[in-house]
Order: sequence, then structure tokens, then C-alpha cells
Amino acid sequence: MISRYFPILTWSRTYTRDTFANDAVAAVIVTIMLIPQSLAYALLAGLPPEIGLYASIAPLLLYTLFGTSMTLAVGPVAVASLMTAAAIGNLVAQGTPEYFGAAILLALLSGLMLLTMGLARLGFLANFLSHPVISGFITASGLIIALSQLKHILGVSASGHNLVELSREIGAQVTNLNAPTFAIGAGTVVFLYWVRSNLKPLLVRFGLSEKLAGSLAKTGPVLAVVVTTSVVWVFSLEAQGVAIVGHVPSGLPTPTLPVFDAGLWKQLALPALLISIVGYVETVSVAQTLAAKRRQRIDPDQELIALGAANIGSSISGGFPVTGGFSRSVVNHDAGAQTPAAGAYTAIAIALATLFLTPLLHYLPKATLAATIMVAVLSLVDLGAIRQIWTYSKSDFSAMLATILVTLGGGVELGIATGVGLSLVLYLHRTSRPHYAIVGQIPGTEHFRNVLRHDVVLTPGVLSVRIDESLYFPNARFLEDTINDEVAKDPLLKHVVLMCSAVNYIDASALESLEMINLRLQDNGLTLNLSEVKGPVMDRLQKSHFLSELSGEIFLHQYEAVCRLKPAKAPSY
Amino acid sequence: MISRYFPILTWSRTYTRDTFANDAVAAVIVTIMLIPQSLAYALLAGLPPEIGLYASIAPLLLYTLFGTSMTLAVGPVAVASLMTAAAIGNLVAQGTPEYFGAAILLALLSGLMLLTMGLARLGFLANFLSHPVISGFITASGLIIALSQLKHILGVSASGHNLVELSREIGAQVTNLNAPTFAIGAGTVVFLYWVRSNLKPLLVRFGLSEKLAGSLAKTGPVLAVVVTTSVVWVFSLEAQGVAIVGHVPSGLPTPTLPVFDAGLWKQLALPALLISIVGYVETVSVAQTLAAKRRQRIDPDQELIALGAANIGSSISGGFPVTGGFSRSVVNHDAGAQTPAAGAYTAIAIALATLFLTPLLHYLPKATLAATIMVAVLSLVDLGAIRQIWTYSKSDFSAMLATILVTLGGGVELGIATGVGLSLVLYLHRTSRPHYAIVGQIPGTEHFRNVLRHDVVLTPGVLSVRIDESLYFPNARFLEDTINDEVAKDPLLKHVVLMCSAVNYIDASALESLEMINLRLQDNGLTLNLSEVKGPVMDRLQKSHFLSELSGEIFLHQYEAVCRLKPAKAPSY
Repeated sequence: MISRYFPILTWSRTYTRDTFANDAVAAVIVTIMLIPQSLAYALLAGLPPEIGLYASIAPLLLYTLFGTSMTLAVGPVAVASLMTAAAIGNLVAQGTPEYFGAAILLALLSGLMLLTMGLARLGFLANFLSHPVISGFITASGLIIALSQLKHILGVSASGHNLVELSREIGAQVTNLNAPTFAIGAGTVVFLYWVRSNLKPLLVRFGLSEKLAGSLAKTGPVLAVVVTTSVVWVFSLEAQGVAIVGHVPSGLPTPTLPVFDAGLWKQLALPALLISIVGYVETVSVAQTLAAKRRQRIDPDQELIALGAANIGSSISGGFPVTGGFSRSVVNHDAGAQTPAAGAYTAIAIALATLFLTPLLHYLPKATLAATIMVAVLSLVDLGAIRQIWTYSKSDFSAMLATILVTLGGGVELGIATGVGLSLVLYLHRTSRPHYAIVGQIPGTEHFRNVLRHDVVLTPGVLSVRIDESLYFPNARFLEDTINDEVAKDPLLKHVVLMCSAVNYIDASALESLEMINLRLQDNGLTLNLSEVKGPVMDRLQKSHFLSELSGEIFLHQYEAVCRLKPAKAPSY
Repeated sequence: MISRYFPILTWSRTYTRDTFANDAVAAVIVTIMLIPQSLAYALLAGLPPEIGLYASIAPLLLYTLFGTSMTLAVGPVAVASLMTAAAIGNLVAQGTPEYFGAAILLALLSGLMLLTMGLARLGFLANFLSHPVISGFITASGLIIALSQLKHILGVSASGHNLVELSREIGAQVTNLNAPTFAIGAGTVVFLYWVRSNLKPLLVRFGLSEKLAGSLAKTGPVLAVVVTTSVVWVFSLEAQGVAIVGHVPSGLPTPTLPVFDAGLWKQLALPALLISIVGYVETVSVAQTLAAKRRQRIDPDQELIALGAANIGSSISGGFPVTGGFSRSVVNHDAGAQTPAAGAYTAIAIALATLFLTPLLHYLPKATLAATIMVAVLSLVDLGAIRQIWTYSKSDFSAMLATILVTLGGGVELGIATGVGLSLVLYLHRTSRPHYAIVGQIPGTEHFRNVLRHDVVLTPGVLSVRIDESLYFPNARFLEDTINDEVAKDPLLKHVVLMCSAVNYIDASALESLEMINLRLQDNGLTLNLSEVKGPVMDRLQKSHFLSELSGEIFLHQYEAVCRLKPAKAPSY
């Protein structure tokens, strides 16, 4: 029982020297990738760079204790950082101790919410974010983040959390562009794009193994950091207006206590909930995808607990909201990590970097970090998915488009809420006007299909209607109208059979409609029959008066119904 | 085409002297019943009594032009009057010209909304009010209305629009009870209950026909009005504190123009919408029930237009929101009305009463009207329905209970909103964890049913799963987990068949889940097959890559799937 909440007790039992070696190698590669990423995402969240490092230590250690994915890597990620900046930026000024305090509190709230949801086994709530909404949200966030980084690359100042605000401010400032900053920023962007598409093939051509070449190609951002930092230091470019990271305090984070300010807690509750849900969805998607590759399983409810613990840990160690990240987890997976212990080793490596490497970051230009973020998030913009969804389903597409447009125009929180709301409304609308088919027998089988799509045999005097939806209040009246209209078309009808193979539920409103249909048909000398009623639906009907009032019968299957109603059976009126 | 919007052009073509005679008799009976009702509901809405009469003239004439029900009678009704009082009472003081102006405006707004919804053919929106929610709402409203009338029967003053407020105020005042008022009020209640249950059988026993006795029994309220008015007049009880109706101006209403005050329009918009929807639902329910008895049909969208016109007419002639009433329509129907012309004759009769009978109403005690309302609304409280719904479905019951409690405690608008919201949430929750069954063949048939409920034959190596819900984002992950878990139970499996007879829709999220399931099964050497995929679902799948990636096949029906997969067919990996 206890091992359900501490998966480490299970996997550590089979931990060997080989597993350790694999985990340690993966940890080194992930650390090299994480250092610039952590700094960059702290910058994106409007926080000092060392906070990014802090948020990559305690959360990783805690995930090792509680996580069920063997390869997931948690830490600061782009979308959660943007959401953090948007949530806090509206309340307090960036750069103040209050801003920092609010970020810590946001991580705590998010952690507590995730933990509570995990203990209450509410993991299913994440399912209400549909793929098109998530995809649209990530695309729009990617665009906003990329645009928000443009100011660092241009060397101008601008703020704002949606496309309109950002474009206006950057447009007004573009003439104040700082040339050396722009050279560093744009140069890094071009370099990173080149690395991404060309370095791996090049290394392979030079004889490196596919895997090693892939790992080396991931070090592009570190290379960019080293080169641009050196250039700024050698040529003293900070004197020419190139913004640098500046003094980064060394040493491990000191434990902090979040402020207890009821007003602030209330204001941050909704953003914390949204960050939790979005972060959880990203985490579970990544973890499930990677687990499937190795035929492993994750426990979605335990992942809520693990992510909650990671966020509480981040808060207490002075960090900000963290999530299971896509790119770092893939790198961890590809580098051969076998267990969550790799995460603990990564945490130790980053702690060492925090202790000894921070002086080297002094001359690191912010434009380099901005370029790293920009290239990372633009890869999230998935135009192919938009086109695919357009082809497959117009209603999924409209939910996606609404999410993109509202996120771009009104911010991340409104964007997600709109997407989820619209998806549900469209679904309810669909079920309120269900598809139905008049069915007939496919010759040579006992199978009944739509008369409009298949060559079927109809039985004179019997109307068989298959209604393709659960019967519940939004479509109850539709059902009455449908049967009325179809019955009116054939004056020789004797029996109506409602084929219920697609009816998964009949609520009280629909039951009243069925009683009404039964009465009307009976008044007109027809019987109402049901076929293929599912077990759970039948259980419920047996608790009502409907079965005793029904003018016809309930048949186990449609073929039986037609066989029995076909001969000149005396109508029951 | 024009006759679609003016049904009178159709039914008037066959209008004969006989039809006229029937309509005229019904009009006389309905008028006798309507006069005290109209006065009482105006009182309930917090308006002068003559307004109730005004609201029973123009609306009836306009419904005759536009209505599609042959027997519906529109006018002031209890629930809409209560909602009117609740909506306006929060904004302006009762008894002021502003209060009257707001009631007129409310009718206009409601009329415009109904008309717009009718032209846009939005009648289906009313379907989102489920039967349990309507029933719960009417029960709770009935209790609130009855309690609100208690002050008139006790002769004390109290205000408030929910159970808590009303109970507290009446409780504080009960010692100030006015004895003659209480005698009249309580006496009328007892008398009306006696009439309702005993008068008709008594008259039948005295040899009257069933129908005549029924009609005479409906005149109870008129009798009570005549007797109590005479008593007050003869004994000058008004001097002893019995509240009377007082001066009622004679003459027809003069056309009024609603005030154009943007702030007030905005404040009344939501109440107007709710009154419109509740009124429309009541109207359509009554009209459809009565039409079904004569095998007639109504057009729900045209009913929106007719009800909209009636409300606009009510507003312009100085009335308040009107609705198709249940009891008056039943009386009209039972009295033999053949066409909506009966409504026009009723309107003329009420106009004559407004011209000549109002002086007789001077000494009418308000307690009598309150007693009439109380007895009418308490008959709406349907405890049997509550018990029935409890037995049939706990989720329908909880929506009903929430509607009742929130209506009683928080008012009518919040009550309805809660009921509708909760119904939808419960439905979505249900679909997010759908029922599924492992199915096998029922011997001697080609029919497949749940292995847990039927004696079925399973095919070794083939797992057939019937999932009982459309596949969409809230249950997409559930589907993946279900298939994973079921496949893990049998290591000898070769084929999985997803029987899709209950799958009415597959959205983009579920499609991704299917692709994931297909990949995982393929990795494990199994094929994924679908059977009984419906036409519309298949059309959509053909637009995706899924069919080309599918490791198995799509079978027309489950029997074919099992027949074809049964022999040692080479797996497709």
C-alpha cells in the first residue's frame, strides 16, 4: 500500500550498477541542457536567473521519490513560466520582492492543488482539455513567448501578455534597437536553427554514431552560451548597452516560507489552478508517450501527487511553478535514463553548478537566453496539426481556432477557458440533434443497417429506427418529433421498433418522451417495441412503469424483433 | 410561405358556424375562470389588479393570429408573475410608476427575445431544461408563491422572494394577524379545496353530466369572489382592516410606450431571458400535451413567435409578461374550443368586463385572491414526481433536488441556472467514464452481448470490447486505459475488436487515442479491428490517416469480425 504512494520503493529494489551507469550518463547530458534552459525560463517568468536553477533541484529530488514515470524530467518550462509571468505581472511590479514572493506562493498553491487532486483521484479532470484545445493553446503560447523574447533580442523594453499589447509596444520601440544586442540575439537564433537541422547529419557524416551525434546536437544552446558570454566579456559589450545576466549569487537556495496574505492567495487561486491543470496535462502526455515506447505504465493519479510534491518543494526552496517538460524528458529518455534516480543525479549536478559555476554566468547576454527560448517555443507551433484537424472535424477545428485567437488576444487563462467551454458546448449541441437511421436487414446476415447507405431488406408494416445517441433531456423532444414524422410517412405501419444499440443511457426526461411516444402510437393503433437494449439501460427501465405500459415488446436483438413482428401478428390494441 | 407565420390563414379556411358555437361556449367558461385569476396574478406580480385584465386582452388576440395550438390560452400565470415580482422588486419600490414601467419593459424585452429566437428557429434551446429541473423549479416556485400569499391571508405585511426571507418576515408578524382577513382567507382556501375534490362528484350524483359538473366545479373561485366581496360590502369589513382591491379604473388599456433607459434594459435582460425560456417551456409542454390528445401538431418555433407577439402586445397595452397557462388551457380544451378564435372571443369578453364590471370589484378582499393563488400553486407541488425520479435515476434526482433547494434558498433565477448547469455536468461526468462490456456470441444467433449478463460464446485469441459511448476528449484516455488493462489479462490474445455500435462520434482527441492504441497493440503483436462502425463515423475516419495505419480491419458487423478472425489468420506484423 505504501509503495503505491512511494513508487521508489518498487523500482529501487532492482537497482543495479548498470542502471546507475545509465542514469548517471543521462543526468550529465540533461544537466548540460538544463542550465541555460533554467536560466532562460526564469527570465521568461520575470525572475532572477538563479531562481531557474533553484527550481531544478528540489523538484527533481521529490519527483524521484513520488514519480511513476521512469524518464520524466520536471523543472521550469516555457508555458508555465509564461503563465506565471501573466498571473503575477497583473498584481505586482516585476523585479520587486513582492513579485518574487508571489511566484513562490503560486508554486505552493499549485503544489497543494495538485496534491489534493491526486489524493482525491481527480486525474480524470485533465481529460476535459481536448487535444485540439491543448495544441491550439501551446501554439498560441509559443507565439506569445517568441514575441515576448523579441525585446531582449532587439535590446528594447516592452511588456504585455498578449499579442496585441506586445506587438504595439515592440513596434513603437523598434527604432531604438541596440545593434550589438541584436547581432548576438539574431546570430544565436540562426545558429540554433542551423544546429537543429544540420548539425546531427553533419556529425553522422563525420563518422559519429547516430546516438552520439544526436546528443551532441543538443548541446547547441550551451555552445551559444559559452561563445556569446566570452564575446561580451572580451569586448566589454555590456558598456555598449548589451543587457547581461550580471551577478548571480552562488550557493544553494535557503528555505523560504511563502507569505500568508489572504487577498493574494485569493487572487492567485485561479491562475494556480490553470497552471496546475495545464502543467499536469503536459506532464501526463509526455510521461505516457515515453512510457508507451518502453511498454511501461504510469499512474496518472500518482503523477498528480508527484507533481504536487515537486511544486511544493520548488516553493519552499525559493523556486517557481514546475512541470514535466517535453524536450528535457525526451533527452533524458534518449540518453538512456532507466529510473527516476537519473533525476536525482541531475539535481545534484545542478546544485554543484549553483555552488561553483554562477560567477561564469556574469557576462551571459540576456539576448542569448531569449534566442534559446524563442527557438524552443517556435518548435511548439504546429501548423500541420491545425491543417489535420481542419480536415478531420470542423467542430474540433473551431474549438482549436477559438483557443488560439482568444489566447493571442486575451491571454492564456481566457484562452484555455474558452477552448474547454466551446468544446463542451459543441458536443452538447451535437447530442441535442442526434443522427438517426431507418434500418433494414443486410441480406444473408442478421445485421441491420441504414437504408440510405446499404442494400437492405425492409419488412412491410414494421418501421425500425436506430437512434444514434443516448436519450437525455436535450434530445428528448427531438426523439418525439422524429418518430412522429417517420410514422406519418407510412399509413400501413403496424409496429415501430426502436433499435437501441447506440442508446447508452435514458434519463427521466427521455423516459417521459418514450411514454408519450408509446401512448401516441397506441392511440393510432401501432405498437412501440425496443430492441438491443443494453443491460444498464434495461436495469433502469425496470425501475419505472414504462415496461408495463409498453404496447409492444423488448427484443434481445433486432433480427428477433423483425422475425417476430413479420408474420401477421395481431396488433395489441 | 406566409401561412407558416400566420397559421390563422390555414385554420380560418374551414371555420364554420359549428366551430364558432364551440369556440364561443369555451370562451365564456374560460372568461369566468380568467377574471379572478388575472386579478390575482397581477397582485402576485406586485401590480394593480386591472393590469391583470389588460394582460388578458391583447395577448389573446395576438396569439389567435400567430399561434399553432388550437386550444392554448395565454395570459398572466403564477410562475411568470413571481419571476416578474422578483426581477423588478430588486430594482424599484413596489407601487411606484417606475415599478409599473419596469413590468411593461420586462414584457417587451421578453417578447422581443422570444420573437428573435423564433425567427432564428432556436426553439431547441428550451430542451436544455430537463423535466426534473422544470418539475423541481415549479414545485419550489409553488411553495414560494404560496408562502408569499400567506401575508394576505393573515393580513400582515411582508416581502422577500425566497423561502428564508419570507418565513422570517411572516414569522415576526404573525401575532399582528387580522382576524376578519384571516377568516375570509382561510375560509376561501378551505372552500376551494372542498370544491376541487368534492363538488364535481356531488354534482354528478345530483344527475348532472360529467362534463357540465366538471365545468361548474371550475367556477369555485368566481363563487368565492362573489360571496366574499358581498360579505365585505355588507358588513363594511374594510373598516376593520380587511385589505380590499379598491378602485379599479374602468375602460380599455391605453397604448403605452416602454421607457428607453439603457441601464434598466441591461438590468432586466437576464430576468427577461429566464422568464422567456421558462414561459416558453411551459407553453410548449401544455400545447404539445393538448395537441397530442386530438392528434394535432404544433410548431415549436412558430410558438416562440406567437408568444413573442403576445408579450409585445401585453407590453404595449400596459400589461406584464404572459405565458401559455396550464389550467386555463385545459379548461379551454375541455370546454370544447376548436380553434384559436376561442382566445379572441375570450379577449372580447374580458374587454367587456374591463369596461363594465370593474366597479363591482371594489370590495373584493385581497385575501380571496391570495387564497385562489395559493390553492392553484399548491396543486403544482408534485411530491409523487420527486419520489418517481428518485427511484428511476439518482443523477436526475440530484439535479431536481438542487433546483428545489437553490430556488427556495436563493431565488428562481439562481435555481434554474443551478439545475441546468448541474444536469449538464452530471451528463458530461457520465460520458467521461463510460460503460463498456466484453462481448461474446449468443449461441444460435449472430448477436453479441455482455459476457457478464448473458450466456455467450467467446472466441479464443479474440477480445471483443463494446464501448458504450461516443469517443470524445473526456473519455479518450479512459479508452486507452481500458484496452490496456483488458489486453494485459490474456497473454494469448491475437486480435482486439472494438465493437462500435454505440459509438456515434469520434473526435480528434479520441482519434489520437485510437492511433495510440493501435500502435501499442501492434508493438505487442496484436491487431486492432473495428466492427459495426456507423456511416457518419466512417465518413470522418476516411478523412484521417487512421485507416491506412490500422493494423487490423474494419468489419461491417461483429459476427463477420469473429468469423474472419477465428481461423489461424497470420497476424499482420
